[in-house]
Amino acid sequence: MSDRYLGFANSSLGRKLVDSLGLPRPATLERWEAGRMRPVDGPLVLGGGPLARQVETLAARLTDAVYGFNGQGLQCEPWVAGLGPKIKALVFDASHLSDSDALTQLREFFQPLLRNLAPCAHIVVLGRPPEAVADPMASVAQRALEGFSRSLAKELRNGATAQLLYVGDGAESQLEGALRFFLSPKSAFVSGQVLRLQPCQAQVEDWTRPLSGKRALITGAARGIGAAIAETLARDGADVLLLDVPPASEQLQALAARLGGKALVLDICAGDAAEQLLAALPDGLDILVHNAGITRDKTLANMTPEYWDAVLAVNLKAPQLLTQALLDNGALHEDARITLLASVSGIAGNRGQSNYAASKAGLIGLAQAWAPTLAEQGISINAVASGFIETHMTGAMPMGLREAGRRLSSLGQGGKPQDVAEAIAWLSQPGSGAVNGQVLRVCGQALMGA
Amino acid sequence: MSDRYLGFANSSLGRKLVDSLGLPRPATLERWEAGRMRPVDGPLVLGGGPLARQVETLAARLTDAVYGFNGQGLQCEPWVAGLGPKIKALVFDASHLSDSDALTQLREFFQPLLRNLAPCAHIVVLGRPPEAVADPMASVAQRALEGFSRSLAKELRNGATAQLLYVGDGAESQLEGALRFFLSPKSAFVSGQVLRLQPCQAQVEDWTRPLSGKRALITGAARGIGAAIAETLARDGADVLLLDVPPASEQLQALAARLGGKALVLDICAGDAAEQLLAALPDGLDILVHNAGITRDKTLANMTPEYWDAVLAVNLKAPQLLTQALLDNGALHEDARITLLASVSGIAGNRGQSNYAASKAGLIGLAQAWAPTLAEQGISINAVASGFIETHMTGAMPMGLREAGRRLSSLGQGGKPQDVAEAIAWLSQPGSGAVNGQVLRVCGQALMGA
Repeated sequence: MSDRYLGFANSSLGRKLVDSLGLPRPATLERWEAGRMRPVDGPLVLGGGPLARQVETLAARLTDAVYGFNGQGLQCEPWVAGLGPKIKALVFDASHLSDSDALTQLREFFQPLLRNLAPCAHIVVLGRPPEAVADPMASVAQRALEGFSRSLAKELRNGATAQLLYVGDGAESQLEGALRFFLSPKSAFVSGQVLRLQPCQAQVEDWTRPLSGKRALITGAARGIGAAIAETLARDGADVLLLDVPPASEQLQALAARLGGKALVLDICAGDAAEQLLAALPDGLDILVHNAGITRDKTLANMTPEYWDAVLAVNLKAPQLLTQALLDNGALHEDARITLLASVSGIAGNRGQSNYAASKAGLIGLAQAWAPTLAEQGISINAVASGFIETHMTGAMPMGLREAGRRLSSLGQGGKPQDVAEAIAWLSQPGSGAVNGQVLRVCGQALMGA
Repeated sequence: MSDRYLGFANSSLGRKLVDSLGLPRPATLERWEAGRMRPVDGPLVLGGGPLARQVETLAARLTDAVYGFNGQGLQCEPWVAGLGPKIKALVFDASHLSDSDALTQLREFFQPLLRNLAPCAHIVVLGRPPEAVADPMASVAQRALEGFSRSLAKELRNGATAQLLYVGDGAESQLEGALRFFLSPKSAFVSGQVLRLQPCQAQVEDWTRPLSGKRALITGAARGIGAAIAETLARDGADVLLLDVPPASEQLQALAARLGGKALVLDICAGDAAEQLLAALPDGLDILVHNAGITRDKTLANMTPEYWDAVLAVNLKAPQLLTQALLDNGALHEDARITLLASVSGIAGNRGQSNYAASKAGLIGLAQAWAPTLAEQGISINAVASGFIETHMTGAMPMGLREAGRRLSSLGQGGKPQDVAEAIAWLSQPGSGAVNGQVLRVCGQALMGA
């Protein structure tokens, strides 16, 4: 549950020792605190193409200090002259780069700025989805942004992050929600990610309580990541219904009471789980978070039928059946937001987790299979793939594996349950129908990949 | 160029020492040798759904020993009884698994067999492309195979590999070419990969010389991976035209002479490169391999304009312009096969390689952008993403980075230039139009991912 090396390496004594030995010193990441108003606490520098102008129109809502957009999009005085204040956020619109030669503008823009980043700075590169760009030269240039931005994310230090957002035609109006997430400490443990935004009619009305008036169900909510999700959705204004299994009843009730929500004690694998759930939701749902999940690790050569079946039943079958029942009974409102908690294991596979990885890959498939149909009702469904998150579960891992999980990532540490919760809270916003059928990794840009 | 640890750990003294210290002992991988006939040198076990019957019809051309397919698809006597010989190849058709419960058949099939694998065994799981499966339950089950097979690949030992092939409707006739690659030592350094096969009219006529009568151009062919590609395409029957820059002229001429091919000394970035190339190809081309590439590594903060521009020009712009010129002038025959040498860096990004990763991600985009149009002429275009391959380039890396590159993969070692060449030779076959617009990693299932 606690990363002692991270604490030590950032103590006054530890810092000296670690630096003198040349050991890595993972940064203490800034997280969002309830009540905070501005997403960006310091200078925001804009540059590049036409989308940067769109960002300029909303930038005053992101921070008090906007700089650098000069209409040419390529020079960011005063940093080029070495005189600028430390930068807290950077947005470069690369959507206008129409061939491989033009990509040199990335280097021109970023180079003078990279030595002037404040701790925990956040970078967003904007582009157009390559598959939607008709001209092959331009499509290739847009696709190249992915290699660039993932490399940039790996080079950043001091807790800084970088992402690439491919903004579809008509999706410009949803940039604010995405930037409020990716430029703020809400995305502290998200880096090196690539997401696509598409048009979405729904909008957040009050950015201080973006989930106001929404009913949310969170499964596996008694503790760990599920509890953090419940807290975060409640913080953002949602009415929360917390679900967990009978043994967790006491913890669940206590948390529900604290959050002003309700508790539903239910085994999601029970034969009548769908009926029980529907009975508990007479007014339907706006936000559905399938967080409940278990691990039963063994190599396939040693896997028992019980281990295999339990993991597939809880992690994959139950969310599938329950969601189907909610849809069939009209219990998911228009513009509902569904998030499935997947895992980097479901993307890359993992030794000893053939059952778990199959279930989590299946959840990604669930998002991909249902997204097009659900979009017709304004409903979105996405997966959040968590990497190494500090919980009771990881606390019980063998030390070597735990340290590898923590350090083999660009941020050099594990994440917190809140980090996963913030991603889900963002995806649960009305405007986040802009993201659909996708996977967002919350993993500190873990090395582990497909 | 040589992995001393691999050699030591597999020597008689080293083996004892390494095992007693609990250190990893990467396997000595079997490679394909010219003149070999059978893809599988030992028992091939089949199981699962209807595609396994299709494989059964061609299995006698793969090996002398076919076992285990019993029409029920689920029990593989005599291994269940613990009496079977060591297995060299396994194919399980999971295409009929239509919901999450059915996935348990994966465990049932594989478990008794996994302890009975011969060294360097090769496993292929077959499925249907999830995006083409109408029933959501079945689509999700098919998508789950990805997490399963990548996990399985990570659990294998002794040089064994595992892949997942999604066989599109009508693509069954191209299974033979894919299995000749994935079940044989030709795919020694490929593991944990997921590819889609689609229908393709063209067919290999003579499996001993699958590229017979085909004209191939390989750029950057004087040495390293390019030379291995030239050798391998020539071995498989192609007429090879080797291209490289003027300083490599002597090496290039010597290799071309040895392979009975021709040499073309040309800087692909020259202003008249396209005209020179067209002049050298009066009869056009069947196989085009864009292998030429350079690295100029620096972090973005230190990147020079020269480093950035050189890498983008050689690695991305030149292949794009030359291919366009070949297409515009009708120099690419019907059913031509184009392969672009990408890199795992282009998928995952890499510290110090923002220029290189952008160029390689761009090449992946090139394959994706052009594939649909080129398919109309029967032409395919794919990217091969190499991981850590032992060359002069990696030989010059700092030791720590080199060792990390070698060991942070499921096979625990670097690959050889031949491994990349074999993948390209397979993708260059007439029947390999079944693969289009895709990326095949040749990386030993490197940990590094997106």
